[in-house]
Amino acid sequence: MATLQDIAVSAAINSLSTIAFLVAFAILRLQPINDRVYFPKWYLKGIRGSPVSYGSLSRFVNLDFRTYIRFLNWMPAALRMPEPELIDHAGLDSAVYIRIYLLGLKIFIPITILTLMVLVPVNWTGKTLELEQFKNLTFSNIDKLSISNVPTGSKRFWAHLLMSYVCSFWTCYVLYKEYKIIATMRLEFLASRNRHPDQFTVLVRNVPPDPDEPVSEHIEHFFCVNHPDHYLTHQVVYNAVKLAKLVSKKKSFQNWLVYYQNKYERNPSKKPTTKTGFWGLWGSRVDAIDYYTSEIGKLNEEEDAERERVISDSEALVPATFVSFKTRWGAAVCAQTQQSSNPTIWLTEWAPEPRDVFWDNLAIPYVELTIRRLLMAVALFFLTFFYMIPIAFVQSLANIEGIEKVLPFLKPLIEKDVVKSFIQGFLPGIALKIFLILLPTVLMTMSKIEGFISLSSLEKRSASKYHLFILVNVFLGSLIAGTALQQLKQFIEAPTGDFPKTIGMSIPMKATFFITYIMVDGWSGIAVEILRLVPLVMFHIKNTFLVKTDQDREQAMDPGCLDFATSEPRIQFYFLLGLVYSVVTPVLLPFIVAFFTFSFVVFRHQIINVYDQKYESGAAFWPDVHLRILIGLIIAQILHMGLLSATGADKSTTPWLIAQPILTIWFHKFCKGRFESAFVKFPLQEAMVKDTLERATEPNLNLKAYLQDAYIHPVFKGGELDIPVAIDEEENNPLVPTKRNPHGGSKHGSEVSPEAHI
Amino acid sequence: MATLQDIAVSAAINSLSTIAFLVAFAILRLQPINDRVYFPKWYLKGIRGSPVSYGSLSRFVNLDFRTYIRFLNWMPAALRMPEPELIDHAGLDSAVYIRIYLLGLKIFIPITILTLMVLVPVNWTGKTLELEQFKNLTFSNIDKLSISNVPTGSKRFWAHLLMSYVCSFWTCYVLYKEYKIIATMRLEFLASRNRHPDQFTVLVRNVPPDPDEPVSEHIEHFFCVNHPDHYLTHQVVYNAVKLAKLVSKKKSFQNWLVYYQNKYERNPSKKPTTKTGFWGLWGSRVDAIDYYTSEIGKLNEEEDAERERVISDSEALVPATFVSFKTRWGAAVCAQTQQSSNPTIWLTEWAPEPRDVFWDNLAIPYVELTIRRLLMAVALFFLTFFYMIPIAFVQSLANIEGIEKVLPFLKPLIEKDVVKSFIQGFLPGIALKIFLILLPTVLMTMSKIEGFISLSSLEKRSASKYHLFILVNVFLGSLIAGTALQQLKQFIEAPTGDFPKTIGMSIPMKATFFITYIMVDGWSGIAVEILRLVPLVMFHIKNTFLVKTDQDREQAMDPGCLDFATSEPRIQFYFLLGLVYSVVTPVLLPFIVAFFTFSFVVFRHQIINVYDQKYESGAAFWPDVHLRILIGLIIAQILHMGLLSATGADKSTTPWLIAQPILTIWFHKFCKGRFESAFVKFPLQEAMVKDTLERATEPNLNLKAYLQDAYIHPVFKGGELDIPVAIDEEENNPLVPTKRNPHGGSKHGSEVSPEAHI
Repeated sequence: MATLQDIAVSAAINSLSTIAFLVAFAILRLQPINDRVYFPKWYLKGIRGSPVSYGSLSRFVNLDFRTYIRFLNWMPAALRMPEPELIDHAGLDSAVYIRIYLLGLKIFIPITILTLMVLVPVNWTGKTLELEQFKNLTFSNIDKLSISNVPTGSKRFWAHLLMSYVCSFWTCYVLYKEYKIIATMRLEFLASRNRHPDQFTVLVRNVPPDPDEPVSEHIEHFFCVNHPDHYLTHQVVYNAVKLAKLVSKKKSFQNWLVYYQNKYERNPSKKPTTKTGFWGLWGSRVDAIDYYTSEIGKLNEEEDAERERVISDSEALVPATFVSFKTRWGAAVCAQTQQSSNPTIWLTEWAPEPRDVFWDNLAIPYVELTIRRLLMAVALFFLTFFYMIPIAFVQSLANIEGIEKVLPFLKPLIEKDVVKSFIQGFLPGIALKIFLILLPTVLMTMSKIEGFISLSSLEKRSASKYHLFILVNVFLGSLIAGTALQQLKQFIEAPTGDFPKTIGMSIPMKATFFITYIMVDGWSGIAVEILRLVPLVMFHIKNTFLVKTDQDREQAMDPGCLDFATSEPRIQFYFLLGLVYSVVTPVLLPFIVAFFTFSFVVFRHQIINVYDQKYESGAAFWPDVHLRILIGLIIAQILHMGLLSATGADKSTTPWLIAQPILTIWFHKFCKGRFESAFVKFPLQEAMVKDTLERATEPNLNLKAYLQDAYIHPVFKGGELDIPVAIDEEENNPLVPTKRNPHGGSKHGSEVSPEAHI
Repeated sequence: MATLQDIAVSAAINSLSTIAFLVAFAILRLQPINDRVYFPKWYLKGIRGSPVSYGSLSRFVNLDFRTYIRFLNWMPAALRMPEPELIDHAGLDSAVYIRIYLLGLKIFIPITILTLMVLVPVNWTGKTLELEQFKNLTFSNIDKLSISNVPTGSKRFWAHLLMSYVCSFWTCYVLYKEYKIIATMRLEFLASRNRHPDQFTVLVRNVPPDPDEPVSEHIEHFFCVNHPDHYLTHQVVYNAVKLAKLVSKKKSFQNWLVYYQNKYERNPSKKPTTKTGFWGLWGSRVDAIDYYTSEIGKLNEEEDAERERVISDSEALVPATFVSFKTRWGAAVCAQTQQSSNPTIWLTEWAPEPRDVFWDNLAIPYVELTIRRLLMAVALFFLTFFYMIPIAFVQSLANIEGIEKVLPFLKPLIEKDVVKSFIQGFLPGIALKIFLILLPTVLMTMSKIEGFISLSSLEKRSASKYHLFILVNVFLGSLIAGTALQQLKQFIEAPTGDFPKTIGMSIPMKATFFITYIMVDGWSGIAVEILRLVPLVMFHIKNTFLVKTDQDREQAMDPGCLDFATSEPRIQFYFLLGLVYSVVTPVLLPFIVAFFTFSFVVFRHQIINVYDQKYESGAAFWPDVHLRILIGLIIAQILHMGLLSATGADKSTTPWLIAQPILTIWFHKFCKGRFESAFVKFPLQEAMVKDTLERATEPNLNLKAYLQDAYIHPVFKGGELDIPVAIDEEENNPLVPTKRNPHGGSKHGSEVSPEAHI
């Protein structure tokens, strides 16, 4: 068991590496050459056109040493932008995402102070671990501060019981407040939003085939009859999977063409060549520029033919459509009601934003959808509980003997000591590592198979899958040594009531492990995030080989975005740890508070300067976040129950704890009824207000023209994704003075301007 | 353990008592004096005005002996009415309720034949129970036919595994078919229904208070703004709880007045007197007729004053209202959408039928509602698992010593042997019996506290509570000897995986017990139902003391109605038994088939001739029935799993069974998505079709006048409940020739006419 010294050492190492990363970041970001890696958001918004110059010394390297002194200046700068402006700048999704960290602070700072003040003295004076019979056991000072130090059956456990209630109550109170704030923010955001196509549009799926009419007319007739006063127009969806493939293939070929043209320009003496086979590795050698030019020509023709075919062929129509209405009220009505007596046809729901649509899933019929969900539920179960089996199999193959058998010619190389120890020490781990890296992709693929129709719902779904995986394999897996499969077996064979006890018992012992984990994953991990090593390298590679014009450079930027599907479940893990250890080992809490503080600053900086969200869902993910924190709370409560009854606390304490999870479940139901509809429905009153306002201000608006091309598959827009409409509209928004003077801080509106971050 | 002989004896006793009840029924129902007890439905429908006379011999006793010979004639007569006519005659609720029994037959007849043919030979030739080591144990022939006779680890268990799958598949298939049929029936019923106020009306609850406007105007403004094209009118709800009490008190006084008047008329020599105190038991003695006349006069005044107060006082307005729309489309839209951004105000839902409304619950605010639900959930848990504690307490008081201590003057009486043995043998049981009789009322009260706003939803809710109670206390309580509390303890302390095993093991042993139970509860119990002893006695008492006019006699009839809340969970118990024993002891199945057949005939007869439903919900309860059968199926599957793994079946069989409950849960989800919305939503297409039709056929309809008084608390209708609108409409329905000639069977439409039941 780790002692206090071990933890101090670990803390020192992690703090140092975190500081090293931050210094590296501070240096790299000040180089004009990296400006597009660390401030892409400002370029995308059109506020910054070229790197800020520091004197006239260099275009690539910043030689102004004064700027390096203030290397942590970005932190206050990141905190300075007020929230309303942040919402306008980065969208509500990002602003609310940041609030998850803030929520963590709100929950854990008071709990930390309280538990440290109350429980640490109670535990410290428990003195169980100093008794005679424990003398031979090694124990650390941390354990003296934990619940293990309280003697069995002591009255002191009443303090823990009370604190458990106080923590639960405080968490619920903060969660309720936060849910209320976020619901209000969402409603205000939706109400203050300018005209958007999705406000008028409903996605209709499972349009039944009609023998007498083509799909498009059938849809028009149905809605003319059933929504006579409100129906405006509709856009059919084409099955453009093949076309999309052609477009992306052409794009890749164009990149290669540019690469070889650049190469030729720099070295005109030698015509570049390539091989025609797979990845240019084999096949006959040809002139690269000619080859790619002709290939692109061919693809252009194919693409045109395919586009023609798709538009003219009625077989290429998907039985789904985007129906637009004359008013928001009409759309709200259609989205919330059932159209046909058969609930598996004419399914209506709010259309996602045009850029949020996941086009490939629009065509799945109802029955297939339910079967897909069943299969994926089973697959998720096996993935969670049996993922070690294939990995163990790969590991058993990837040992020295296995390799020697399959690839005998490598034998002399492998037999060398250095290589041998590398293989033995590294290969078994690498299979697991690769699996864990691939896991989010696998989960996302599973969500896609389940048939969700917007990127936002895909991310939400993947996040809940990942949360389950972390819960079972990281949390429970660390508490009970052994794989999830063994846990499952143990769970089935052990007495039901004993399971919480078994886990509860091991909680105090694992405190030091989790403290180390928080420092590695939560501190250094976040510092690596701000460094953006991969985009940095990629940008410079692209910049060297592909960029000719400024527009190319614009495209070489990879701002990235908040990856909700993987990062949110990770935050949830910290909530869970904090709630579980609040009563057991309060000294763990300051580490969690440090994680939330640091992450809050880092991600606020990233959102302001880097990330460019792919879509805007209006914080539709909050009910999930709320639910998962409550799941963590209930797990913590059950484990406290198990722990207290296992350590033989006063018999009368344990029954008092049973009420906790029941009340928490009730709280969840209450919040669900109170707030959730703000995230899934659109009230008619709001719709009516906006409609009336619009009629008064813009009586001559041609809505049909506005909506005509809103929901068209991106490949039909000439192969290029349009700049999302939202940004155009934000430019007109008076809250953000977007066309700021790039030099000289503007005092009005906000103090954050591009150079304020230096 | 009961032997075959025991069961034969029990079957004989129960069959004889059933036949005795049926003979008694056959004799009683043919007496003209009982005509209104056994054929009230026909009187209420206005088809029958006076008892059918059998010759001119007597008005009270039927002396035509030929009619007695055909004493089972009512059975084919009950089956003869075709279903469409049954729906018109008794409503969709009743017709669909009968189909639950039919569903039982559809599920269990094929399963019975198959399992008897396949599993009985497999079990019989297992010969485990004839082995040497079992020689000393007594076992019955029934056990030889059950799974207990198969040797441990035998390959024969594959047959049981296969049959378990076949039964599950067949059950799901029949359930799916039935759900589809009932959904279609419901949609057809709703579509073919004449104009009803509830089609145009939406119940709006939690109307927020407005400081500037009175409630009524506030409501009107809100809907004029947010549903401008569709809003027609609204009716506020008055808090008439006190008024309703006055009305019911007056009615009771009027009954007493009539009673004393009759008494006086029959015996004019003596003026009847009464005491003014509680129940006429104490207080000063006064002239009864004068006393009640003056009391009624006082109450009349009070009632008028209260009615004035309620209508004029804005404090007496409840924050709920019935809003009516110009079209069914408008009402469908309003019922299915959210009105305000705050989801706890302006809550809309379909208005129940006027006679289905439970007026007392309309005023409960949102937060209170969630707290009430929480409290009732906790109460239900304690009621289910700890109900034995108060009963045991009462029982411990109600013994000889307890009574002697409290009431010492009874000592000489109690000490007598006859009284003593009576108290000792009877009193402990009576507490439990009283509890079980009161249970449905208690559950209904709990549902009322939960705040449901229609009688139909109250009954649905009570049914699900009663189902849980039966499941835990009757089913599991019989399998594991001991109270639910002990089970709970066992469940927590025993290994999780062992719980199904423990119960699974005890299933085959309890087969004979359940066979006896089916015969007592299912055969004799149903035969008692058809006898209607309580209404028979009550009718004759009322007839003797209260009836003066024909109208009084009409009111003295108590047709009763299908008590969904208690009888449906009982049917579910038979489904559960059948599904559990299908694989284990197939010889139990014929008894269940007999139950379903007999009940089907009896209840079809009752529905045609007796019951008068209080409301018509359009079979809205079917999703619950479907779900509960599936719950039974899943319990059966888990118990089969436990049983097979406990009897040491071939290790490879058990894992195959795990897929069953998962597939069943998926099947439930699939059915829910496919059909449930037909029971909770009203599709816009249907609404539009009916609106268009109505506009074409009745262009000058004054809908406002039609809806004006539809939703008025019954006490405002002059203290008398109006005859429900539905009946008036049925009279115009061409499907049922209602004003039939009471003599001479009418061949067209249906062969069932009142005298066809003789």
